[in-house]
Amino acid sequence: MKLSERLYEKAQPIWEQSHSHPFVQGIGNGTLDIEKFKFFMCQDYLYLIDYARLFALGSLKAHNLETMQTFAKMLHVTLDEEMSLHRAYAKRLGISKEELEATKPAPTTLAYSSYMLNIAQRGSLKELLAAVMPCAWSYYEIGKKLSETPGAMEHVWYGEWVTMYQSPEFGEVAEWQIDLLDQLTESSSEEELLELEEIFLTTSRFEYMFWDMSYQQAMWPLHD
Amino acid sequence: MKLSERLYEKAQPIWEQSHSHPFVQGIGNGTLDIEKFKFFMCQDYLYLIDYARLFALGSLKAHNLETMQTFAKMLHVTLDEEMSLHRAYAKRLGISKEELEATKPAPTTLAYSSYMLNIAQRGSLKELLAAVMPCAWSYYEIGKKLSETPGAMEHVWYGEWVTMYQSPEFGEVAEWQIDLLDQLTESSSEEELLELEEIFLTTSRFEYMFWDMSYQQAMWPLHD
Amino acid sequence: MKLSERLYEKAQPIWEQSHSHPFVQGIGNGTLDIEKFKFFMCQDYLYLIDYARLFALGSLKAHNLETMQTFAKMLHVTLDEEMSLHRAYAKRLGISKEELEATKPAPTTLAYSSYMLNIAQRGSLKELLAAVMPCAWSYYEIGKKLSETPGAMEHVWYGEWVTMYQSPEFGEVAEWQIDLLDQLTESSSEEELLELEEIFLTTSRFEYMFWDMSYQQAMWPLHD
Amino acid sequence: MKLSERLYEKAQPIWEQSHSHPFVQGIGNGTLDIEKFKFFMCQDYLYLIDYARLFALGSLKAHNLETMQTFAKMLHVTLDEEMSLHRAYAKRLGISKEELEATKPAPTTLAYSSYMLNIAQRGSLKELLAAVMPCAWSYYEIGKKLSETPGAMEHVWYGEWVTMYQSPEFGEVAEWQIDLLDQLTESSSEEELLELEEIFLTTSRFEYMFWDMSYQQAMWPLHD
Repeated sequence: MKLSERLYEKAQPIWEQSHSHPFVQGIGNGTLDIEKFKFFMCQDYLYLIDYARLFALGSLKAHNLETMQTFAKMLHVTLDEEMSLHRAYAKRLGISKEELEATKPAPTTLAYSSYMLNIAQRGSLKELLAAVMPCAWSYYEIGKKLSETPGAMEHVWYGEWVTMYQSPEFGEVAEWQIDLLDQLTESSSEEELLELEEIFLTTSRFEYMFWDMSYQQAMWPLHD
Repeated sequence: MKLSERLYEKAQPIWEQSHSHPFVQGIGNGTLDIEKFKFFMCQDYLYLIDYARLFALGSLKAHNLETMQTFAKMLHVTLDEEMSLHRAYAKRLGISKEELEATKPAPTTLAYSSYMLNIAQRGSLKELLAAVMPCAWSYYEIGKKLSETPGAMEHVWYGEWVTMYQSPEFGEVAEWQIDLLDQLTESSSEEELLELEEIFLTTSRFEYMFWDMSYQQAMWPLHD
Repeated sequence: MKLSERLYEKAQPIWEQSHSHPFVQGIGNGTLDIEKFKFFMCQDYLYLIDYARLFALGSLKAHNLETMQTFAKMLHVTLDEEMSLHRAYAKRLGISKEELEATKPAPTTLAYSSYMLNIAQRGSLKELLAAVMPCAWSYYEIGKKLSETPGAMEHVWYGEWVTMYQSPEFGEVAEWQIDLLDQLTESSSEEELLELEEIFLTTSRFEYMFWDMSYQQAMWPLHD
Repeated sequence: MKLSERLYEKAQPIWEQSHSHPFVQGIGNGTLDIEKFKFFMCQDYLYLIDYARLFALGSLKAHNLETMQTFAKMLHVTLDEEMSLHRAYAKRLGISKEELEATKPAPTTLAYSSYMLNIAQRGSLKELLAAVMPCAWSYYEIGKKLSETPGAMEHVWYGEWVTMYQSPEFGEVAEWQIDLLDQLTESSSEEELLELEEIFLTTSRFEYMFWDMSYQQAMWPLHD
């Protein structure tokens, strides 16, 4: 059994809760309060910057030139194209560039990205991949499922989001990460597999919390 | 103005909310539900392991032998003495060694320690210190304040905690960190000082959240 | 005085020895034994891979999006375009792709790239830049000087090399690094400047040793 | 076959050249020029500081508390006891504390320690161990062999050195590293074993070069 199959199975109870979360459902059926989505977009913008850093680490830690190149391309594409798309989308939603760039990270955003960056800096490419994989993989799953709802891909605000994440091009990013981790763990011990599983489940949980944070528009639980 | 004076002043609105939090107040006046304290002890045990890793990073990143040695000593003392004291204290509270070591990290514990480890791995000794400082410094402040409550240091369960953290020996640890950061930032630009301030305030907020998490005994907001 | 001006002045005694080294002179006047140049090309190919890793680290450690993007672009360009040019050039010199990729690092190659990667992983962006700068900067200086020799840019084997490194496009890479370090060190203490100077001079010395290693075709001083 | 057995066998051609090197032989039969030994002591002092950093990294990257503790102890002992012994020994040889601390690293010293620190920062505990192991292990082997020469352990200058490194206590440090790597690589793929082997052989070669550098008293091949 490939590690990815095992991870997918183990993560289902978490991923299903993400899928049925009112934030995600609201993107699909178009009922989500746009203020909640704007909050999400701003936090996701900050998330993307640290997400890109994980690809820089992938390029640093890769053991062969081809893997270094793929991570380098993902880094470049994330910082240039994806963030640019993000800014254009945000603008269309009424978030100015200034507002976007002035966003302060919510504790859950910091928690999620810090967790991945800590794991990736301290560990090897395997740990990095286990940490980073739930993001693209679960987004692709969500994108595909939501796209089955009639009209989801044409919704004035959320159609663009659903269309982007259900696309085969986006799916290829997830697949590349999956294949690489499967290949790197072919002869891993059960002890190592359990550690990687724990990382994967932890970032899956942080994915859920990110949806929930956006729904609650939750910043620090402290008054100024 | 030394950076530490500026940090202290800026952090007051956060630290005061920590101090007046029912968890902290409950340690001082002895009314805290012991189950909440046990939750705290178990999470704090996990926290200590990552806290020690920050001292390992300090020893790695220090620019002179003396600083390397002090961090090495703090690492050694944390892993050997402090964790041993922690285990003894936990045992007295009815937490077995097995239970302690089987503890799963709560999301706030992961958030706080991952944030520090990410900052410290990616940055220099200055960023490391700004991230790590609120822990010892604010505990010492809390220890001293709580010790003023008559009976706080003699309480059957919490007296040991208050006694430990109000002690001058513990205060010296905080002071060493403060002095080192002040010295390293003597000629820092305002831009750098603002970055360090942001780090210090962020871990101060995570300190607050750690108290709050313990009070709520909050694990992941997901069902199994 | 900008740090870069100080570094340039301090490094002159080393850079002049590089410039007058028979390997470098031989590139300019076309008298260099082509076997020595092939040795250089193979080692330089390995060097480029680790050099790219430094840009990955730059993108990881940068404090703002724009700097992250520039490093990401340098990483991408180095791994895709520059290494591709390198392979084409090597092929023209009679080095097959297999031979190039089977190259074992000489101790001086390992020393130079390991030194930079150690400094860059342990330190901040400032240390990274001080370590990485002599490479592009001194190559640009050498390229410009050699291009003044009539015929140097048209030489059947070495003309391509001289043409590449004297080009304004290549000079811009060096200049970007120089400007960034100057900007980051505007308020640095003399202690920090001395540390950065030591790093810059050390990689300048490794640059010299790289020329000398190539001239000697020096592998490990051990028999099999 | 344990990885350590394979490494030992593969490294023999290199280790034998270290053992028969006039510097090492000269320590054993007492004929080594004391100026060469003083050069060695000063460079070894700098080496020890970076060697300690590897133990800090071991403590950072360890996957369980016990391993963290052992590395922390090795870090503490290296920085406190071993460096203190080193200073006392140096003093007896006529090297003042000032002279020792003013030592500039030779290129081979930088190459060797930078190589290990780069590998250890970028990789996992396995790579760290493969890089660090030849030092203690080959010193123990050399210590034991030299101690067989009558009078080697009583020599006025070199007896202390031979006595230290042939001691069972020193051997235990090497053995702990060996056992840990064997344990961590029980299910490693052949591809991973080959990478670890390459690291081990590379630091074995740098060990040889360190002896040779000391014999030549070799600093940078550049004039001031």
